[in-house]
Amino acid sequence: MTSPSQYLINGYIRAGLSPVDRGLSYGDGIFRTLRVCLQAVQTEPGSWALHYKKLEQDCKALAITCPSAELLLSDIRQLFPLKDEGVAKIIITRGETDRGYAISNGTHTTRIIIKTPIPIYPTGNFTEGVRLHLCQLRLSAQPRLAGIKHLNRLENVLARMEWTDSNIAEGLMLDENGLAIECTMSNLFARFNTRLVTPNLNKCGVAGVTRDRILEAASGLGLEAEIADLTLENLMQADEILICNSLYGVWQVSELDNQCWQPQRLAKRLRQILQA
Amino acid sequence: MTSPSQYLINGYIRAGLSPVDRGLSYGDGIFRTLRVCLQAVQTEPGSWALHYKKLEQDCKALAITCPSAELLLSDIRQLFPLKDEGVAKIIITRGETDRGYAISNGTHTTRIIIKTPIPIYPTGNFTEGVRLHLCQLRLSAQPRLAGIKHLNRLENVLARMEWTDSNIAEGLMLDENGLAIECTMSNLFARFNTRLVTPNLNKCGVAGVTRDRILEAASGLGLEAEIADLTLENLMQADEILICNSLYGVWQVSELDNQCWQPQRLAKRLRQILQA
Repeated sequence: MTSPSQYLINGYIRAGLSPVDRGLSYGDGIFRTLRVCLQAVQTEPGSWALHYKKLEQDCKALAITCPSAELLLSDIRQLFPLKDEGVAKIIITRGETDRGYAISNGTHTTRIIIKTPIPIYPTGNFTEGVRLHLCQLRLSAQPRLAGIKHLNRLENVLARMEWTDSNIAEGLMLDENGLAIECTMSNLFARFNTRLVTPNLNKCGVAGVTRDRILEAASGLGLEAEIADLTLENLMQADEILICNSLYGVWQVSELDNQCWQPQRLAKRLRQILQA
Repeated sequence: MTSPSQYLINGYIRAGLSPVDRGLSYGDGIFRTLRVCLQAVQTEPGSWALHYKKLEQDCKALAITCPSAELLLSDIRQLFPLKDEGVAKIIITRGETDRGYAISNGTHTTRIIIKTPIPIYPTGNFTEGVRLHLCQLRLSAQPRLAGIKHLNRLENVLARMEWTDSNIAEGLMLDENGLAIECTMSNLFARFNTRLVTPNLNKCGVAGVTRDRILEAASGLGLEAEIADLTLENLMQADEILICNSLYGVWQVSELDNQCWQPQRLAKRLRQILQA
């Protein structure tokens, strides 16, 4: 580890997490990562309402009790002094139970906030675009977990192990039927003329906040946003491919599977809208 | 939580685990659960060589460095005084890295040993057999993770949430094609006359030590052990169904999906062999 990190567990600076927490035992929890830079007391991180709504939805899908927004904001304010910019990773687990999959009555959610520095991305990612690795690992289909940003992320780990070249920013992941789904830490968009398509995430993938915001913003840019199945063949015919997440915003893809795309203006335009 | 638990993290009694450990962030690790009752200094838990071999294989499949058997045995001996019977859960994670899926150089494996009491099972489970719930949740197919006892266990958690009736001991899980794979915490066998079949685990499921031991023991009982695909329809026609794990050994299934089976002698015979 090279970066310092600070964290709170259930609001307290503690030595650590109990190893019987189900977040560790089973990945029985969810998370969200967001940029934080609080400008004044009682302000919220950008797009907080959207992030909190996702936390609530994901908790509900797993029948985990979601902590209140007030509690999470209070933790974030404790970790982030005013104007101090950083990344907040919010982890919510089902909490501690006896060994075994059954959930005891009276289980209490564990909430963890981890603060890390804002990553420094190469300038070229924003100006020239990014190269993608085409991952061999195929995402498995699990409709009960699709879309949820849960803690079972071994597929992402295995996919990210496929490349070490630091000139490759991300890896594209397909499902078992060859549909393009997402990248290891990013959602995916493909523009075909005025159509802006992002993959259907009802069998696998994580539905990010930035994906929702781009879907929302598209019409203002004269684009028709659409959620649809997208084969790799379709994707390769796109006029441009974009990837996005809450930390870097939007990058255009410059190269995938030996095909190149020239830099265009949509990624920058979307970054401006997202920052506004 | 009702049961006391004690644990060691990397050999030390510590307050807890760092929340940036990848075992929590991504379920990036593996585990194994075994009965321990050390009879003398330097003795090992039962079937230790088999358990350790699985730990090594599972670590290798995820490119995690497996701690030496000596180190794990030393931890177990520290937690379990002689003749003190309990359950040891061994968790091995990839360790702590910076935020993000990429694995930094110099990452050190985290090893955790948790000691809990031996569960108390109803006597009837051993004499009359057990009722199974037929889970609605279908296991997803991921050949890269199949067979591995990794920490991404949300499917088991969701499946276990499907019943609360304490007269139901386990839940049978099928894959997306309707093949019977395993139960939430147990492997599965079906006897058809002298054939003893256990499902193929090359797309999903966890390959337990007790399953291997039963496959090995079958011929001594005049049975032909076989690993094969097993549809639910096949399974329902079995002369008897057995489930197994390292804690309870073997139970016969008395009821599944409104069909009943009379108690027979194989489960008891297998328990005797496993205990010998």
